[in-house]
Amino acid sequence: MNLAILTSGGDAPGMNAAIRAFVRRGLADNHTTWGIPRGFEGLVRGEPEALTAASVANILMTGGTILKTSRFLDFHQPDVRAAALHALGQWGIDGLIVIGGNGSLSGAFELNRAGAPIIGIPASIDNDIALTEYSLGFDTAVNNIVASIDKIRDTASAHERIFVVQVMGNQSGTLAIAAGLACGAEAIMIPERASDYDEIADRLRATYARGKRHSFIVVAEGAGSAQTVAQEIAQRTGQEAKWVVLGHTQRGGPPTAHDRIMAALFANHAVDLLASGTHGVMVRAHAGSIDSIPLAAVIDAEREPPLDWQDLAEILAR
Amino acid sequence: MNLAILTSGGDAPGMNAAIRAFVRRGLADNHTTWGIPRGFEGLVRGEPEALTAASVANILMTGGTILKTSRFLDFHQPDVRAAALHALGQWGIDGLIVIGGNGSLSGAFELNRAGAPIIGIPASIDNDIALTEYSLGFDTAVNNIVASIDKIRDTASAHERIFVVQVMGNQSGTLAIAAGLACGAEAIMIPERASDYDEIADRLRATYARGKRHSFIVVAEGAGSAQTVAQEIAQRTGQEAKWVVLGHTQRGGPPTAHDRIMAALFANHAVDLLASGTHGVMVRAHAGSIDSIPLAAVIDAEREPPLDWQDLAEILAR
Amino acid sequence: MNLAILTSGGDAPGMNAAIRAFVRRGLADNHTTWGIPRGFEGLVRGEPEALTAASVANILMTGGTILKTSRFLDFHQPDVRAAALHALGQWGIDGLIVIGGNGSLSGAFELNRAGAPIIGIPASIDNDIALTEYSLGFDTAVNNIVASIDKIRDTASAHERIFVVQVMGNQSGTLAIAAGLACGAEAIMIPERASDYDEIADRLRATYARGKRHSFIVVAEGAGSAQTVAQEIAQRTGQEAKWVVLGHTQRGGPPTAHDRIMAALFANHAVDLLASGTHGVMVRAHAGSIDSIPLAAVIDAEREPPLDWQDLAEILAR
Amino acid sequence: MNLAILTSGGDAPGMNAAIRAFVRRGLADNHTTWGIPRGFEGLVRGEPEALTAASVANILMTGGTILKTSRFLDFHQPDVRAAALHALGQWGIDGLIVIGGNGSLSGAFELNRAGAPIIGIPASIDNDIALTEYSLGFDTAVNNIVASIDKIRDTASAHERIFVVQVMGNQSGTLAIAAGLACGAEAIMIPERASDYDEIADRLRATYARGKRHSFIVVAEGAGSAQTVAQEIAQRTGQEAKWVVLGHTQRGGPPTAHDRIMAALFANHAVDLLASGTHGVMVRAHAGSIDSIPLAAVIDAEREPPLDWQDLAEILAR
Repeated sequence: MNLAILTSGGDAPGMNAAIRAFVRRGLADNHTTWGIPRGFEGLVRGEPEALTAASVANILMTGGTILKTSRFLDFHQPDVRAAALHALGQWGIDGLIVIGGNGSLSGAFELNRAGAPIIGIPASIDNDIALTEYSLGFDTAVNNIVASIDKIRDTASAHERIFVVQVMGNQSGTLAIAAGLACGAEAIMIPERASDYDEIADRLRATYARGKRHSFIVVAEGAGSAQTVAQEIAQRTGQEAKWVVLGHTQRGGPPTAHDRIMAALFANHAVDLLASGTHGVMVRAHAGSIDSIPLAAVIDAEREPPLDWQDLAEILAR
Repeated sequence: MNLAILTSGGDAPGMNAAIRAFVRRGLADNHTTWGIPRGFEGLVRGEPEALTAASVANILMTGGTILKTSRFLDFHQPDVRAAALHALGQWGIDGLIVIGGNGSLSGAFELNRAGAPIIGIPASIDNDIALTEYSLGFDTAVNNIVASIDKIRDTASAHERIFVVQVMGNQSGTLAIAAGLACGAEAIMIPERASDYDEIADRLRATYARGKRHSFIVVAEGAGSAQTVAQEIAQRTGQEAKWVVLGHTQRGGPPTAHDRIMAALFANHAVDLLASGTHGVMVRAHAGSIDSIPLAAVIDAEREPPLDWQDLAEILAR
Repeated sequence: MNLAILTSGGDAPGMNAAIRAFVRRGLADNHTTWGIPRGFEGLVRGEPEALTAASVANILMTGGTILKTSRFLDFHQPDVRAAALHALGQWGIDGLIVIGGNGSLSGAFELNRAGAPIIGIPASIDNDIALTEYSLGFDTAVNNIVASIDKIRDTASAHERIFVVQVMGNQSGTLAIAAGLACGAEAIMIPERASDYDEIADRLRATYARGKRHSFIVVAEGAGSAQTVAQEIAQRTGQEAKWVVLGHTQRGGPPTAHDRIMAALFANHAVDLLASGTHGVMVRAHAGSIDSIPLAAVIDAEREPPLDWQDLAEILAR
Repeated sequence: MNLAILTSGGDAPGMNAAIRAFVRRGLADNHTTWGIPRGFEGLVRGEPEALTAASVANILMTGGTILKTSRFLDFHQPDVRAAALHALGQWGIDGLIVIGGNGSLSGAFELNRAGAPIIGIPASIDNDIALTEYSLGFDTAVNNIVASIDKIRDTASAHERIFVVQVMGNQSGTLAIAAGLACGAEAIMIPERASDYDEIADRLRATYARGKRHSFIVVAEGAGSAQTVAQEIAQRTGQEAKWVVLGHTQRGGPPTAHDRIMAALFANHAVDLLASGTHGVMVRAHAGSIDSIPLAAVIDAEREPPLDWQDLAEILAR
């Protein structure tokens, strides 16, 4: 079979590991493997490139995506999707894997509904894709944040300050919660649940009364800007509060072992499914194993952040 | 209640995070929290130390264990366990958490059977404890190995050599398999499944024929020594094969985010169970959530390594 | 002798290594060693704390400063300095080491002129102290920036974007130049030398014409904000330009080997000098060895950034 | 001019950064730049490859060498060197840069004496090349060792053990001394100065009497095997002593900022010299700047390890 792969939307560590696994696994089963450059845009403005075992050498340990990626807003237009479908037919692609987040999976769903044989692989450093326990890139992103906060802690401790650290997560607080729990943050602010500055300030004052000399607040970008949070907290506590926006340092770097392994397992299962004629599904991590679920179900569902972790983090930081 | 905790056997990253979570969570519920030094040995030769919120400040991000640990072979003797039970009674301990691997959980089981209110937390960089998907320290250890192999790869590539890397795992190949899959190892050797030098050499020759210029073999220590493997492979392939024993660099360093989070979840659940009067169980990760299972069941069961991952790794390294 | 040490101004990785070396070296020569908390502020509002060999165990590998630090603007007032001098006399301090940057060394100079036996150790992640080739913290800060940019590169490459990275350096571009040269930045902007947006944009366009698909501009905070630079460049090139402010992630974390070694050499030499009755000098790295130079000379001189490195970086990024 | 470069002997982090700087700097001055594969072997059995700006994209941050390297013992034979000289003439190479350690620089000297226009760049993780303060790869190697020992420390502390860590350095102890000073090792053993097991054991006993619970001995491979040292020390102290051989994890990984910068400065100066018709010299770091010195002088001289650092390390570990 002619199998193709593309990466779409925000890049996530593990995308390259998934591309490698797709190619090597595909070749082992005598498929021909193709890469589409620059996400969905490549379907209408690009050309597929044949991927060999050598094409994917030494990419397992790199972040980003060798296929490049883009956010291609025109793909919302039916005629653009029709052009994409036409191109897949012209190129003789028998199965396409789309690696990306909610927007990309939504595009994959539409294109599949129009007739393209597509399987999705969840990739999002926010881990905000419904019905899968894991999305590629999340573990690396959390560890990147943890490494940054572990560094900032030295200065926070030396200067006895409050630090507000802004992490990614425009509509999802899962990344902020995981990072905050892993770093011992005194407070975590997320878009899905309102925070109260007075309550946080009270809590910080109480920890200072117990002898703490520095503290951290992790705020998801969708819940407010670090600068604003720092001002509000400084005003209420009378303590100096500094702020940092971690930005794009969060999503790069060598993928963690977990991201490399999950990428291999997802791509391996996706090739199995395509070879067996299945499509219109997303592979996923569920209850300790790898299976799949219809893209239609994923699109309709919402993923809740682990609010119990947020509560626990705040208890443990006392 | 008077709640105590000890760490036993080989140290694992995440033990300190679990101690911190136990103390902070215990104090939040108005328990008194104690630490027993040096594992089971501390029960018969040591003294419990009161742990306060400040005792566990700044340990979340450190490997090792502030309570120290030991392998205490005398604990196999019934009279020594009786002395331990007596000590717990004298000290008025209402619940004890034992963090450790198979040997430690076996000791915990025996001591619980003798009457001590004990809950186990699985910790083992080998991830070889039955009936739990996760044991503390595994994720950090795998990532430590991956970081080491990513470095060795530079030299392997520059000198176009075969490298044999020996990792921990005396009776378990799970660590070797995960690391090998994450690093793109050409072959993985584990104690649970025999490997054939001729077959491996054939495979390496085939990859070299396809243009590969360096390769990796990951061998769990229980499956053979790196030096022997290197000699056998060099002899069969006619290629230079170097070897490295990673040793204790694997089990130290700051715990990964996953180990810190799992430590918090395990300790949190253990405190819940002790407070509710439950004991004789091990907390665990199962099907995407945290629950518990009788220590008796854990002791009797065996954990299989992910042999399908081993097979997949070898396909992907072609 | 009674020897004391304090850390002042911005924290720098290596301060703890210097404190450790001061204490251990001092004790080996039968001095009594004291720590002054919170920089110069501790001289007038604090109490010295006796430092033993155990006080400085396990701090060699940590950023920040166990003595805490502060920026103490009141120290510009002669009566506050008089109070500090009086306190040193009361406490019987025979020699004081001040670890810090230009502001702190200026304070040390004034206090020395007033009669206090002081030796300075240069510490500044900016490496902007005159007449010494090295200031503690610089090597760690450069490597922290390099690690961050190496991560951002993955996203820059995947999305084919220009990235503007803002680093510390309010009045000094040395950190920006070193980081830019080490990372292959296409352009470096510093406070000491004007940059021209048109010229940079021309250069970027030329590299894009030659096939480059992503590029980096490193800007010292004193030379402009990353956001402004990104807007100016995007406007001129027609390319999307993203920006990141690295902030406090730059100055923390375990000190590099170089910072640990230089800290030991500086503190060792400072103890030698104090024991021999020398003061009013700063220890320094000069022409491949460690010696000292009067604080008066340091205060009066200016350190030039390595402009030839800046030129070289731009040649090498073509 | 036609300028060529090769990497020879053991690989060292920074070699790729030097290759990149050579190419980009050479092209900027309108030279044609060539790479010789596999060190001196490539002169007699290989073909030069034209290196463009794109050939060296994205290699600045990688260890190893894209040109590959080898230890080519045949190069000691005059007729082999004559063949190399002949090849350089045939290819029209006007200047050759050799990046490597003592053996490679010795070969470069011989080939230069025979008439080839050669300049050496010192690269050796041992930093054992005479008359230069710095050889490429040393800083990365020291930091790799420090990172490993920082990890092992967790286990050493948790189990209260002595650890013996074997590092590279067959004939040179500079790497061991720098790493030992940076890590707080209690003892350092090097080939250039005899160590006495009784004296080390006495010292460790004294530190244990003062309350230390774990300790490190760093041994250069030329001074003994870690296993032997561990046995000798365990026997004399009655304490358990574990041992680790760090092996090839020391020489790989992304080069540090210092190695990237020194590589750029060395290569830049080497191109300057070749363009001006100078050869038969090695570029070097000397007294705070970059200059050059005849290869003949380098070959004849010996580099002393920093024995005062070794003494200082042992004082500071008390």
